[in-house]
Amino acid sequence: MQSTIVDLNQLLAPVKPEMQLVDTWLTSNLIDDNNFVSDLLSQVFKSGGKRLRPALTIVSSKASLKDGDEISRLHIILAVLTELIHTASLVHDDVIDQASLRRGESTVNKKWNDKLAVLIGDLLFAQASICLARLMNPQIVGIYGQVLGDLCAGEIKQMRQQFSTSVDWDTYIRKSVNKTASLFAAGCQSSAILNRREEDVVASLKSYGVNLGVCFQIVDDLLDVTGNTDQLGKAAGSDLANGVVTAPALFVLEQNDAHANRLKELINTRAVSESDGLAEALSIICQAGGIEKTVQLATKYAQAAKQNLDCLSASTYKDSLAAIADYLLVRTN
Amino acid sequence: MQSTIVDLNQLLAPVKPEMQLVDTWLTSNLIDDNNFVSDLLSQVFKSGGKRLRPALTIVSSKASLKDGDEISRLHIILAVLTELIHTASLVHDDVIDQASLRRGESTVNKKWNDKLAVLIGDLLFAQASICLARLMNPQIVGIYGQVLGDLCAGEIKQMRQQFSTSVDWDTYIRKSVNKTASLFAAGCQSSAILNRREEDVVASLKSYGVNLGVCFQIVDDLLDVTGNTDQLGKAAGSDLANGVVTAPALFVLEQNDAHANRLKELINTRAVSESDGLAEALSIICQAGGIEKTVQLATKYAQAAKQNLDCLSASTYKDSLAAIADYLLVRTN
Repeated sequence: MQSTIVDLNQLLAPVKPEMQLVDTWLTSNLIDDNNFVSDLLSQVFKSGGKRLRPALTIVSSKASLKDGDEISRLHIILAVLTELIHTASLVHDDVIDQASLRRGESTVNKKWNDKLAVLIGDLLFAQASICLARLMNPQIVGIYGQVLGDLCAGEIKQMRQQFSTSVDWDTYIRKSVNKTASLFAAGCQSSAILNRREEDVVASLKSYGVNLGVCFQIVDDLLDVTGNTDQLGKAAGSDLANGVVTAPALFVLEQNDAHANRLKELINTRAVSESDGLAEALSIICQAGGIEKTVQLATKYAQAAKQNLDCLSASTYKDSLAAIADYLLVRTN
Repeated sequence: MQSTIVDLNQLLAPVKPEMQLVDTWLTSNLIDDNNFVSDLLSQVFKSGGKRLRPALTIVSSKASLKDGDEISRLHIILAVLTELIHTASLVHDDVIDQASLRRGESTVNKKWNDKLAVLIGDLLFAQASICLARLMNPQIVGIYGQVLGDLCAGEIKQMRQQFSTSVDWDTYIRKSVNKTASLFAAGCQSSAILNRREEDVVASLKSYGVNLGVCFQIVDDLLDVTGNTDQLGKAAGSDLANGVVTAPALFVLEQNDAHANRLKELINTRAVSESDGLAEALSIICQAGGIEKTVQLATKYAQAAKQNLDCLSASTYKDSLAAIADYLLVRTN
């Protein structure tokens, strides 16, 4: 049996030099020579985060290189813009959700205020647009334009479904693709486009990204139930408290039994937003088998992602892409 | 003496069919088939606005067409994306400034709330990105990426200069280019790029846009002092009340006399944020000749804009571009 690598740093060691370039680019002021802008960028990115999306973009770039080709500045920019969009959307999401903790630190809205958080999110989107322009590739511009739309559509869907228990799996998966998987897929797909790969390789890497992204979202939902605040770097149970029906909750709700009815009641009456109601809801989810079924669903998407890699020739980087899918299933933050 | 056209509708009559297409596009949901998104777009754009930036883009497109060429779908998309970026930045600005009135109607943040306003602004930026992608022109992607950066940089500069009276003209003009003129210029310049015009024509139309945009900002500053709320569709005196040093105020401040000292005091102590202090500040600006000097400065920029048109062959549309510069000097909202 193959051992699962659980340390992301170890997993990403082969792309460490590229990831250092990504980190430098992330805080580069591409707009003007205003020091305040540069300082804001440094402050936003100093709290770290896993840099999973840019890492995935770099690994995917390396795994899909044509023989004799090497990774270029364009691949680095692609990775940077993927992380910029992700961070911009987090900053705005935290304003929308009034969140105060992210990546183990105060959120931008908490540290400064909502107004500066709106502006910093816009600033990050602007930096991403400048990166996108530097790629000089209309097809990739189209992909990321759609990603921005998907992120908004996903957030709007989630906002409109708050405290509603009539969510079904189709709605859940589409929202997860919009909110999360679309950006994962964009990085993977675009890396193959930069490498001038055949359409089937581009399509397979897109599917890998979609499956991996849905898997990531399902595990995120799981950690919202099973994780603790220290581990997560954000408030545990916050999705449920905000009335977001996550995968473990959905598994319980569809059982249509006493557990389901009580959980429905706790969500519909917004009792989940209070600590007692939240504790009861989390306990019901655990008792009613929501955790196990969610793990199985995440595993299914991780396996699908690994199958999408069949189109690539054998390489360390292909192995890393498969290992990232395994890692997502055991990650704890 | 040539009579000045003061009615914008009359001025833009030659591009009415194109502007109707622009209006249809503005509310088209380019992201997905979510009705809620389509409804939000309709609500945002139903309050109108002058549509000056897209109109300018269309007129500029027609004025710079090569012989035998016709206006295309790409020119319409360019105009639409210019208005989308403008509206997105207004929606976020209104959150930042806590404004409650815009275009004579409640702002998005007032009508709904700050959270939905953040999301709607992002949605409009996403729609703009999708439009930008459809142009399939890397040079134009670069121009608009920089515009997004300029808008943020301009807003950040303005935020950091709030209630400071040490602003100089160089700072003022650079902020105005960032905040306003950059987007005017992008539409004009890009229209000539779509028309595959020579570099000197592209550069001249860019300069026309910059000069026109700075003129627009100066007149905006003037209307903040001389206009009334009904006429403007937004609160009169709101720039000054927010501690923004506008052109008329800057002319008074640089006089270094008793008027200047009192105005400085009213701004530095934030007395301008209260109705008495605001009334006194507005009265000082009028008495100390701030209005006349501001009109002269705006006129200088309008004239410079008209001179930039020398590179174009004679046409109704070239005349319209010149007439728009004249209109900006006499506009009342």
